[in-house]
Amino acid sequence: MDKKFWSEKAKRIKPYVAGEQPKFDDIIKLNTNESPFPPSPKAIEAFYNTNAADMRLYPDTNAQIVREAAAFADGVKPENIFVGNGSDDVLAMTFMALFDGEVKTPDVTYSFYTVWASLLGVDLKEIPLNDDLTIPVEKFFGGSCIIANPNAPTGLMLSLEDIEKIAANADGPVVIDEAYVAFGAETAAVLIDKYPNLLVVRTLSKAHGLAGLRMGYAIGCEDLIGALYAVKDSFNSYPTDRAAQNMAAAALYDVEYNKATVERVCRIRDNTAEELRKMGFSVTDSKTNFLFITHPAISAEELMKKLRDKAIIVRRLSNPRTSNYLRMSMGTEEQMERVLAEIRNILEG
Amino acid sequence: MDKKFWSEKAKRIKPYVAGEQPKFDDIIKLNTNESPFPPSPKAIEAFYNTNAADMRLYPDTNAQIVREAAAFADGVKPENIFVGNGSDDVLAMTFMALFDGEVKTPDVTYSFYTVWASLLGVDLKEIPLNDDLTIPVEKFFGGSCIIANPNAPTGLMLSLEDIEKIAANADGPVVIDEAYVAFGAETAAVLIDKYPNLLVVRTLSKAHGLAGLRMGYAIGCEDLIGALYAVKDSFNSYPTDRAAQNMAAAALYDVEYNKATVERVCRIRDNTAEELRKMGFSVTDSKTNFLFITHPAISAEELMKKLRDKAIIVRRLSNPRTSNYLRMSMGTEEQMERVLAEIRNILEG
Repeated sequence: MDKKFWSEKAKRIKPYVAGEQPKFDDIIKLNTNESPFPPSPKAIEAFYNTNAADMRLYPDTNAQIVREAAAFADGVKPENIFVGNGSDDVLAMTFMALFDGEVKTPDVTYSFYTVWASLLGVDLKEIPLNDDLTIPVEKFFGGSCIIANPNAPTGLMLSLEDIEKIAANADGPVVIDEAYVAFGAETAAVLIDKYPNLLVVRTLSKAHGLAGLRMGYAIGCEDLIGALYAVKDSFNSYPTDRAAQNMAAAALYDVEYNKATVERVCRIRDNTAEELRKMGFSVTDSKTNFLFITHPAISAEELMKKLRDKAIIVRRLSNPRTSNYLRMSMGTEEQMERVLAEIRNILEG
Repeated sequence: MDKKFWSEKAKRIKPYVAGEQPKFDDIIKLNTNESPFPPSPKAIEAFYNTNAADMRLYPDTNAQIVREAAAFADGVKPENIFVGNGSDDVLAMTFMALFDGEVKTPDVTYSFYTVWASLLGVDLKEIPLNDDLTIPVEKFFGGSCIIANPNAPTGLMLSLEDIEKIAANADGPVVIDEAYVAFGAETAAVLIDKYPNLLVVRTLSKAHGLAGLRMGYAIGCEDLIGALYAVKDSFNSYPTDRAAQNMAAAALYDVEYNKATVERVCRIRDNTAEELRKMGFSVTDSKTNFLFITHPAISAEELMKKLRDKAIIVRRLSNPRTSNYLRMSMGTEEQMERVLAEIRNILEG
């Protein structure tokens, strides 16, 4: 491409590289942290109950039914909820609506943060993780920050007390990206009334098994939520479609199904971690739906390639500090048994 | 709101105001240019044939099936198509991907252009329409521009020859927003091989009756399409969901249904325009699915209010040059008969 008519901004950016969506069948796809289980049967019912002929009419611009469902699920008011087209959309709006000047983030974290910063003119300051990959809490005091909790790809969580310390010591917005919070961390949503600078971001792509639906939301005081809607209404008035709103609302109300599914994924994760440790892997204490692993006897690159030969797809992220780690999403019980067997073979081979 | 933690950008913007989506029943809703007819039966079938359980997996990031369907419908290659979450999303990406510095647009046009310009740092230069509300073609020569063709809310179109003159005389990107092109104008998509600076933007919200689905696309040479995908992949990797991709692709392939529906809307429009002219209205020569009307004996504000009392919702836009006009989307034959009868009553009352 000669990029002749590209804007300066477009020429400068280095886009985020999403995990591959392989087209071939019979693979075990553990590279994008999707749920191994389908969404709630009530969500599926809500999808098919959508009147597709009504698609001729615009959807509700603010996705009110999703705001109400999320408010129910999180014990807040609908006024505390902003709904977007996946949490990536919510985070992009957040970068525009809340961030000016310098914003702190860990040096090993969701790599999209640096991409948004570059596209949207935010000065992201990377704070190095401690040697054990934990977050140095005090270094986030003052200014603004964005922190994934639990962090990805490390899987490690901060306690609610530490999050509160960061919010209390900040003098700008504190954004906590809780994509994986359901799998073992505590949500900071309980603090939004106390800290008007605190925004919590959620997705339905992980715990709710709805990565294909593109739904995410933010939780914060009305003033922060107002900023997000002001930017949304200056960018795309109708970011979520009619069927997606129906399906998302039903999924959020089905608290019981979500709880059972999440508990099942956590059991699979803890069993898998135990087996991997027995094989000599170093495995972080993940509170997510994935494991972050490294082995002294085989490089991450080689292991990834050998697993791929067995139709098992995992992900290696490009950050130099953790380039010898693999991130492995949790599949079903049956899938993980096969994965563990293949890894044993590879290590023994 | 005290806007304490809002970014400077968020404080500065004046969001676009979308047409109201009234919640009450039994209204005739002619305020947001939706189709009065449902989408293609094949599109509805594709929606219900979507496997909702597969929503656990991310969608195709580039919406390849929609690219192929749009390429088929427009006689171009899939590489010439960019797919977004409604044409508003496509236009927002376009502002980021292609525009630097000054960009020309008519002073009476889609009011979202000024909102994007303000949010995304583009210097929009408004070129006054001629007194008859037509576009002064020569004034768009040189530099970059964005033009809705047909223009909204005037409904007036530029000929393909005029569009080509603008593309040939530009020295930056020329973006033609063809939201309403199916209703009587000629598409500039036939020119993309000749003009590497030409981008055509489309929506499925109007002619395809899919406003509730949030699907739009752009047509251009591969280099321009590459810029849009680079920005998209730096903003939101997965902007369109699985069901929406299926439904949109089926709608685009059903060329016969689209043609019949568009012809029916055009007949309704031309009949309605004729009746309104008989009542003394000045009606522009609309090539869209709406009419832009003004009457010497009643103000637009008063007429809008009196129609609303009869549960008929139309739209008045805030541009001072056309503040005495109403924009009225076309309903079904039956609805427009009732609307005409009510207007007759109002004028006689």
